[in-house]
Amino acid sequence: MNAMLNHTHDPAARSWVASAHAEGCDFPIQNLPYAVFRRTGSREPYRAGVAIGDQVLDLGALAVGRQLEGAALDGARACATSALNEFFTLGPSVWRALRHALFALLKDDAAPELAEAVRGCLVPQAEAEFKLPANVGDYTDFYTSIDHALNVGRLLRPEDPITPNFQWIPIAYHGRASTLGVSGQRFHRPMGQALPPGAKAPVYGPCARLDYELELAIYIGKGNAAGEQIPLAKAEQHIFGIGLLNDWSARDIQFWEMAPLGPFLAKNFATTVSPWIVTLEALAPYRLPWTRPAQDPQPLAYLEDEANRAAGAIDIRLEVWLESEKARAEGSGPARLSSTSFKHQYWSIAQMVAHHTVGGCSLNAGDLFGSGTISGPGPGEAGAIIELTRGGQKPIALPNGEERRFLEDGDAVLLRGWCEKPGHARIGFGESRGTVLAARA
Amino acid sequence: MNAMLNHTHDPAARSWVASAHAEGCDFPIQNLPYAVFRRTGSREPYRAGVAIGDQVLDLGALAVGRQLEGAALDGARACATSALNEFFTLGPSVWRALRHALFALLKDDAAPELAEAVRGCLVPQAEAEFKLPANVGDYTDFYTSIDHALNVGRLLRPEDPITPNFQWIPIAYHGRASTLGVSGQRFHRPMGQALPPGAKAPVYGPCARLDYELELAIYIGKGNAAGEQIPLAKAEQHIFGIGLLNDWSARDIQFWEMAPLGPFLAKNFATTVSPWIVTLEALAPYRLPWTRPAQDPQPLAYLEDEANRAAGAIDIRLEVWLESEKARAEGSGPARLSSTSFKHQYWSIAQMVAHHTVGGCSLNAGDLFGSGTISGPGPGEAGAIIELTRGGQKPIALPNGEERRFLEDGDAVLLRGWCEKPGHARIGFGESRGTVLAARA
Repeated sequence: MNAMLNHTHDPAARSWVASAHAEGCDFPIQNLPYAVFRRTGSREPYRAGVAIGDQVLDLGALAVGRQLEGAALDGARACATSALNEFFTLGPSVWRALRHALFALLKDDAAPELAEAVRGCLVPQAEAEFKLPANVGDYTDFYTSIDHALNVGRLLRPEDPITPNFQWIPIAYHGRASTLGVSGQRFHRPMGQALPPGAKAPVYGPCARLDYELELAIYIGKGNAAGEQIPLAKAEQHIFGIGLLNDWSARDIQFWEMAPLGPFLAKNFATTVSPWIVTLEALAPYRLPWTRPAQDPQPLAYLEDEANRAAGAIDIRLEVWLESEKARAEGSGPARLSSTSFKHQYWSIAQMVAHHTVGGCSLNAGDLFGSGTISGPGPGEAGAIIELTRGGQKPIALPNGEERRFLEDGDAVLLRGWCEKPGHARIGFGESRGTVLAARA
Repeated sequence: MNAMLNHTHDPAARSWVASAHAEGCDFPIQNLPYAVFRRTGSREPYRAGVAIGDQVLDLGALAVGRQLEGAALDGARACATSALNEFFTLGPSVWRALRHALFALLKDDAAPELAEAVRGCLVPQAEAEFKLPANVGDYTDFYTSIDHALNVGRLLRPEDPITPNFQWIPIAYHGRASTLGVSGQRFHRPMGQALPPGAKAPVYGPCARLDYELELAIYIGKGNAAGEQIPLAKAEQHIFGIGLLNDWSARDIQFWEMAPLGPFLAKNFATTVSPWIVTLEALAPYRLPWTRPAQDPQPLAYLEDEANRAAGAIDIRLEVWLESEKARAEGSGPARLSSTSFKHQYWSIAQMVAHHTVGGCSLNAGDLFGSGTISGPGPGEAGAIIELTRGGQKPIALPNGEERRFLEDGDAVLLRGWCEKPGHARIGFGESRGTVLAARA
C-alpha cells in the first residue's frame, strides 16, 4: 500500500461535472491541476483555476463565496491573483487542504446547494485563455536523461559521449526566464552565428537546425533562504507540481557557442510550458522506485536516501507530436514523433532540489526547473529531433509525405503527458503547443 | 571634441555640497550615480537616491517638493520606490532630464531657496543602508576579457587555452538572480562536489578553491520585445548604467561540474554588486575607441559599426583589495591584490547587448549583465585569484605576513572603480564588499 495515497486518489470517485469522466479526459476529479486564466479576449483579471473535465473552476470566484473555510479558503484567496506564487508560498498543508476541499465540492455526493454554487464558478476551458501560471524568478534547466545524453553525446563526442560527472551530478545550467511562454507561444526562428561543417569562420543567418526538447516543468512551491540546504528527505515538500515544457533549441547556434560556458542564445529565444500544473499529490499513485544501473556509482550521501529509492521516480507517459503547416492546411492533423516515460530519468526531482541547494543557492516560490530532455532507452523514445534523425542524417517521414531533419517554418510541436495504470484513475497534463514562425531580419 | 559631452561634464563645475569636491571623493557633481537606500535600521521605505559628496539626495523626498518639473519630475517620481526598474523603463530622455535638473539644483550657483529645499532632502551616506538597486529579472554573465580567458584557459587546456569562438562571440551564460546581494553581503563557503587531482570519484565537502571575479554590473534600462533584435547602433540607448560586481566562484566545484553545460553551483551561491550605478552619460568623458588586435578576425556585421569603433570602450580603473580576518583584527586594513582597466575588454557593452538579442531574446528593465572577469594584459592585472596564483601554485604574500592561494574564511574582498584623466573630473563607483563565512555543513 502506497502511504502517499488518500481518498482523493480513489479511482471510483466521480464528479457531478459529467465531462470529467469522459473517455480520455485529462482532468477527472482525481487530478485537479492549476492554471491561470481569464475568458478569452476579455478584460477580466487573470486568476487561478482548477481543471475539472472540460471546465475551469474559477478560484477567484470561489474565494468570495461561502463554500470554503480555513486553510482551503486561505489557499483559494491566494489563488485570486494573476500568478500562483503567493499560493505556492503557503506550503503543502494548504495545497492539500484546498485539493481536498475542491474534491469534496466537486464530488457527486456534494450537497446540492454547494454543488449549485460551485457550478456558478465554472468557465468552459474552450472559452478560456491562459498565461504563465507563475511569475518565474529563476529558471533552471537540468540534463538528467542518460539516454538523451548518450544520443546527443554520440553525435558530438563519439569516443566519449557521456561526461564523467553525469552519474554523480544532476547536471543543470541556468536558463532564461524572460522568454518563457505558455502553450500557444509563437516565436520567430532565431538568427545567429553557426560554424558550417569544415568552415574556419562562422556565418550569420537563420538557425538551420531548429529542434524541440521534451521536458517536464517542475514548479518550486516553498523556497529556502540563501545558505540553507534543502536536504533530500525534505525536497519534495518544496515542489508544488509538474507541467510540460518544450526547451526549443537551435542546434547549429548551440554547438558553435557552447564551449566553454554552455548554451546561451541557442536556448533563450523561447521556452514553452503547458498551462496546467499537476500537483505532486495527484501524482502519488504513479510513483515508482528510483533505481540506478548496478554498475553505476553509488551517489554521494546527499543524493540518496531510502524514501528516494522507494518512490523517487514517477511514471509520466509523454508524447511529442508535430503538425506541419501543410498538415494544418490539409486538415490531416499532427503526427506522433515519439513516446516515452519520465520513469527512465537518471535523477529524480528530489535529487534535483537537493543538488541545486547543496551549495546554498536559494530557491523562491515560482522558480521553474526543466527536467532536461526526456528520452527513453528504446527506438522512438527520443525527446528531441536531433536524436531521432541522428543529427539530421536520417530524415523522419511524416504520414502526409513530408519529411523532417529539423523543424521547418510553420511547424507546431505539441507535447502531451498523462499517467495511467490498472486500478487507478488516468490523469493528464493537457498540452503544450508552440509554433515556429519564419525568421525576421 | 566628444559629442557625448555637455555642461554636466564640465570639470570646473562645483556643488554647494562641499564634500563633493574633497580630494578623492567618488561623487562630485559630474557623477550623480543612483542607489536604493533608507536610513540604517529604520523602518522607512527604501527609495532611490543620488550620491553627492558624502550625502545621498533622497529622490523620494525631492519628488514631493516643488524643485522639479516635466520629465525630471516624472523621473524622480519613478525613483520614489524600492527599485529603479520603473525609472529605467522611462528611457534615456528622462534619465538625462533628471541628471540635468539635479546638476542644476546641486550646482553652486543654484538659487539659494532651491538649494535650501534640496538640502532638506540630503541624508548622510554614513547613516544609510542600501539594497539591490533593481529587481533583477534575469542576470547574464559574460566572458569578454581575452586576458582572463587566456590566464584560466592555460590552466585548464594548456595546448588550446582559448576556444575558437572567443574572437567571434561575446560569450555569455545565464546566471542566478536569486542570490544577488548588495555590498556588505556575507555568505557561507559553499559545500559541493569536487574531483580531487588524480581521483576517480568526486568527494563532498566545503569548497577548497574559493575565488572572486572582478566584473562590472551593467544594468539594462529599456528592454526589447521577444523576437526583436536591438541593433548595435541602438544598443547603448538600452543601457542605464554601470556598477561593480563580484562573481564569487568555487573553482573546484566549477571544474568538476561545468562540462558540458557550463558553471552552475560554482557561481550561484552569491554574487555581490555595489550599491551605486554610474550612468552611461556620466561616463562619457572616459570613452575610448574599441579596437581589436590586427591579426584577429573582423567581427560579423551585427557586431561592428563606426560608432562602436570610435567610442565603444570605456576606461574604468578597477582594483581588488583583500581584507583578512587577521588584518581586520590588527587594524592593518585591506591589501591591494590587483589593478587594471575595463578598456582592455575584448568586447564592448554595446556588442554584448546586440549579441544577447540577435536571436530574439527579450531584455527587461533591470536585467543585469556581468561584464565577465576583467583582467588586463600586464602582471598584477588579473581579476581573479586563480590567475594571480596560477591555479594556487604561487601564493600571494599579504603585507601582514599571511599568504593566500585561494580565499579563506573571514576574508573580505573589496572592489573599487573610478575614472580619471587630465582635464576631466574624477568620478568613482564607490565600493563592493563581500565577506566569506565558514561553511555550514
